[in-house]
Amino acid sequence: MKSTIMDYNLSLNNIFWRVEKLYYDREIVSRLSDKIFKYTYKDFALRVRKLSNLVLNKGIRRGDVVGSIAWNTHRHLELYFAIPLINSVLHTINVRFHPSEMSYVIDVANDKLVFYEEDLSGSIREIKGKTKASFIPLSKETDEEIDSFNPVEKYEEIDEREGAVICYTSGTTGHPKGVVYSHRSIFIHSLALLPKDVTGISSNEVVMPVVPMFHISSWDIPYASLMTGAKLVLPGPRPQPEDLFNLIKREGVTIATGAPTVWISFLDYILKERLDISPLKVIITGGAEPPKGLMKTLKDKFSVRTIHAWGMTETEAITTVNLSEDLDFLNKQGIPMPGIEYTAIDENGREIRWNGKDMGELIIRGAWVTDGYYNNPEKSKEIMVEMEGKKWLRTGDMVNIDENGFIKVVDRKKDLIKSGGEWISSVDLENAIMSFPPVLEAVAIGVKDEKWGERPIAMVVLREEFKGKVKEEDIKGFLMSINKFPKWWIPDKIVFVDSIPKTSTGKLDKKVVREKVKEILKQSQT
Amino acid sequence: MKSTIMDYNLSLNNIFWRVEKLYYDREIVSRLSDKIFKYTYKDFALRVRKLSNLVLNKGIRRGDVVGSIAWNTHRHLELYFAIPLINSVLHTINVRFHPSEMSYVIDVANDKLVFYEEDLSGSIREIKGKTKASFIPLSKETDEEIDSFNPVEKYEEIDEREGAVICYTSGTTGHPKGVVYSHRSIFIHSLALLPKDVTGISSNEVVMPVVPMFHISSWDIPYASLMTGAKLVLPGPRPQPEDLFNLIKREGVTIATGAPTVWISFLDYILKERLDISPLKVIITGGAEPPKGLMKTLKDKFSVRTIHAWGMTETEAITTVNLSEDLDFLNKQGIPMPGIEYTAIDENGREIRWNGKDMGELIIRGAWVTDGYYNNPEKSKEIMVEMEGKKWLRTGDMVNIDENGFIKVVDRKKDLIKSGGEWISSVDLENAIMSFPPVLEAVAIGVKDEKWGERPIAMVVLREEFKGKVKEEDIKGFLMSINKFPKWWIPDKIVFVDSIPKTSTGKLDKKVVREKVKEILKQSQT
Repeated sequence: MKSTIMDYNLSLNNIFWRVEKLYYDREIVSRLSDKIFKYTYKDFALRVRKLSNLVLNKGIRRGDVVGSIAWNTHRHLELYFAIPLINSVLHTINVRFHPSEMSYVIDVANDKLVFYEEDLSGSIREIKGKTKASFIPLSKETDEEIDSFNPVEKYEEIDEREGAVICYTSGTTGHPKGVVYSHRSIFIHSLALLPKDVTGISSNEVVMPVVPMFHISSWDIPYASLMTGAKLVLPGPRPQPEDLFNLIKREGVTIATGAPTVWISFLDYILKERLDISPLKVIITGGAEPPKGLMKTLKDKFSVRTIHAWGMTETEAITTVNLSEDLDFLNKQGIPMPGIEYTAIDENGREIRWNGKDMGELIIRGAWVTDGYYNNPEKSKEIMVEMEGKKWLRTGDMVNIDENGFIKVVDRKKDLIKSGGEWISSVDLENAIMSFPPVLEAVAIGVKDEKWGERPIAMVVLREEFKGKVKEEDIKGFLMSINKFPKWWIPDKIVFVDSIPKTSTGKLDKKVVREKVKEILKQSQT
Repeated sequence: MKSTIMDYNLSLNNIFWRVEKLYYDREIVSRLSDKIFKYTYKDFALRVRKLSNLVLNKGIRRGDVVGSIAWNTHRHLELYFAIPLINSVLHTINVRFHPSEMSYVIDVANDKLVFYEEDLSGSIREIKGKTKASFIPLSKETDEEIDSFNPVEKYEEIDEREGAVICYTSGTTGHPKGVVYSHRSIFIHSLALLPKDVTGISSNEVVMPVVPMFHISSWDIPYASLMTGAKLVLPGPRPQPEDLFNLIKREGVTIATGAPTVWISFLDYILKERLDISPLKVIITGGAEPPKGLMKTLKDKFSVRTIHAWGMTETEAITTVNLSEDLDFLNKQGIPMPGIEYTAIDENGREIRWNGKDMGELIIRGAWVTDGYYNNPEKSKEIMVEMEGKKWLRTGDMVNIDENGFIKVVDRKKDLIKSGGEWISSVDLENAIMSFPPVLEAVAIGVKDEKWGERPIAMVVLREEFKGKVKEEDIKGFLMSINKFPKWWIPDKIVFVDSIPKTSTGKLDKKVVREKVKEILKQSQT
């Protein structure tokens, strides 16, 4: 029996309606290179309507793609609405992409227009000739041009399954691949972020998303914040710990998001300067496992709670959360939000048991999970799997799932090391090495071994004061001293380096690490 | 551009998946006539699967309708899932309907099977012969029969726009009219109930829905609670204040829902018995304006917060909420939840200004708003209106809307009294009369008047101790003594009665009141 409920499109129209009608007096704060800019939701909405008209005036039409190479600022936020509300698609481009990657994604997404930050004009100059797109700086002059336009009077209804935002992976293998988020997926994901059991963002909170707006829509946190009338604080270009601190204190930030590395350096600064960070209450972190020391200091010294979240470009944004008060349990990535289903499968495609021990690849489906990549049927096929008549996304993450559905990411599938028929988690090995105080950073990979199949090798950066003093044997000795640490996990070789290769989103770039290790091993053999 | 996000059906399947996979150890408590029954989500889910098979065994198929005439119990909750999960539709029938109304709705909804409470077998006997449905008592014998079935192993995927629950209005005009809620609308509404800015229901809360499960799905609160793993306490048949109190204390209820009348008699009892109601923190109320005295006592004496909500059968359940801490502001019905849009229109169909003064009929659209009535094109046409190319539901509620989008329901459109070209709100007049301590209940209607068009007449029930002592003049004198009370609002006549006619959902039945008043006026003239 068909329901009598109307076909109402879940779209950014509804969020924007709330911005204008219910919350127009709320505030948006945006840190720019030279000042702190502030305006109300009302002024923001007016600018969105004018910017839409500017973009229409440049010839952009329904279905066209408009790029942004931008920091977390109010100007970027205006694009977050002005483009999708005219049924065009905003292509958020990773600021840290190499110019060749930038022109690649501009090309394959077919961007007609690209808005870019003035401080990145160096990169832009390199790509300008190489793409068909026109480029507009996010500058004061453009601000003035926007203001000269009339606001769009009325946005048309948009089918909820239309694309709103396209984001490319910053994967370590091959070319970036595109995922197109729909109005519907952004709406549902934003709504699903609000419950107390997820982020608890509400109209009484002051939210600072440090997660880049150029990557997976800053976890949709800006959309969720505007949906419920929270004050939004955008930390701007290359925010340093001091900038974050100033924004927290001056703007009263209560909830902030960011990768663990952001909070590690932030906390270093806070402790060194002996500062207090109230009113901050909650940090939502993900992208990598947050170190227990970080969470413990936040909790014990500053009464700040850590929420551990997990997601990937292919799942739009946050998909699981862990709100445990128990820091030993908080290293798990959490349980799925409403609208998501998952399980994990072994090498034979069989579902693993949910016992917190058996390991398998996480497969996932839900209201903000992709069905494949944009214009890339070949790669799409690789990531989708069918089980019980349903399609699931293969995440490439090896996990265990406990009795209550909490996942623990053990490793990326391709980074797992198989030695003597047993699995070694490169992530766990890295964390063990990094818990040795002289170590600043570590990365572990598997290299082929005739006897064992694979054996682990680690690359380590020592803290300045320990360089030349700590030897390979010291680290191995430390690992051996850890209770219950499997002896056969100890790397065959530890290579000391000055820095570890990272991707454009700051993750360890194991592809490059593998090549470097290969070279080093070759040299040591000759 | 079409998005790459998968077509994932927002359905009860996802909620049920969470019940089984994530929250299986949570508790459901159900007050029965002879005992308190408790089980876990896991046992509940198993029963749901068995009940589905029983129903399939009785010949129920996809699209068929199964009725329930039931209180808020675990058995009713099992039907809430067991029927929609096999893509059949649960028809929740108002327990307080007259047997003739019951057989009417069973007939027009085409129920094949009806589950009913044993304590209502009197009504059931009257209707059994008159409908084509089979009847099954919600009894111990049926429990045993359910347990004898194998659980359904796998529920099929369901299109999100399929009907899940059908509910009939208990309108005071004409026959009940049906609204079919979809899997999608129940899912989105349940999710939209969870944010802090709405109800704040979370896995740490103990929720007791006193709003009947036979009417607008108890505001979808049972679905929302199970979606997020809250402990659910169902207050069973005809719960009295003492029953509610016992459940709150013994089960640790923190959030409860119910119409103002429920909480008025509850508070009378609590105050008389000098009881304490911790751990109760929040009461969500709606259906009528909660008296300020009620909210004040709850806040000052018991630190219980009142959330004022609004909705109607045609909007599935809750659509606006007011979380204000200011009790003078809390009489407004609130702002719309994400997924809803509204405005109000005057007699000429023009949008009113949102200034908190201008009055118009509330029109509404959104993800859980109906597009008409089930199998009733004529009545459907009456309630839908088109504006700016969009379809809106006419709510029949006259409201003003303030600058921040808060609605204040002034009156039902058909109950407004127009005297000398000016509007009198029957609701406001009733509230004014009821603020006179000797008055227990009051109802006001308009009667035709040659000079003024209409004039208000009130029907009043005095408290026992004041009967025969308080006269018409005393009430008029009291109204005159209220500062700023418009003199021309004072009723021309006040009729004392022993009780006021009510509908099956406990609302004032103004249709019957009008007839009675007509009779009384005729008698007084002769």
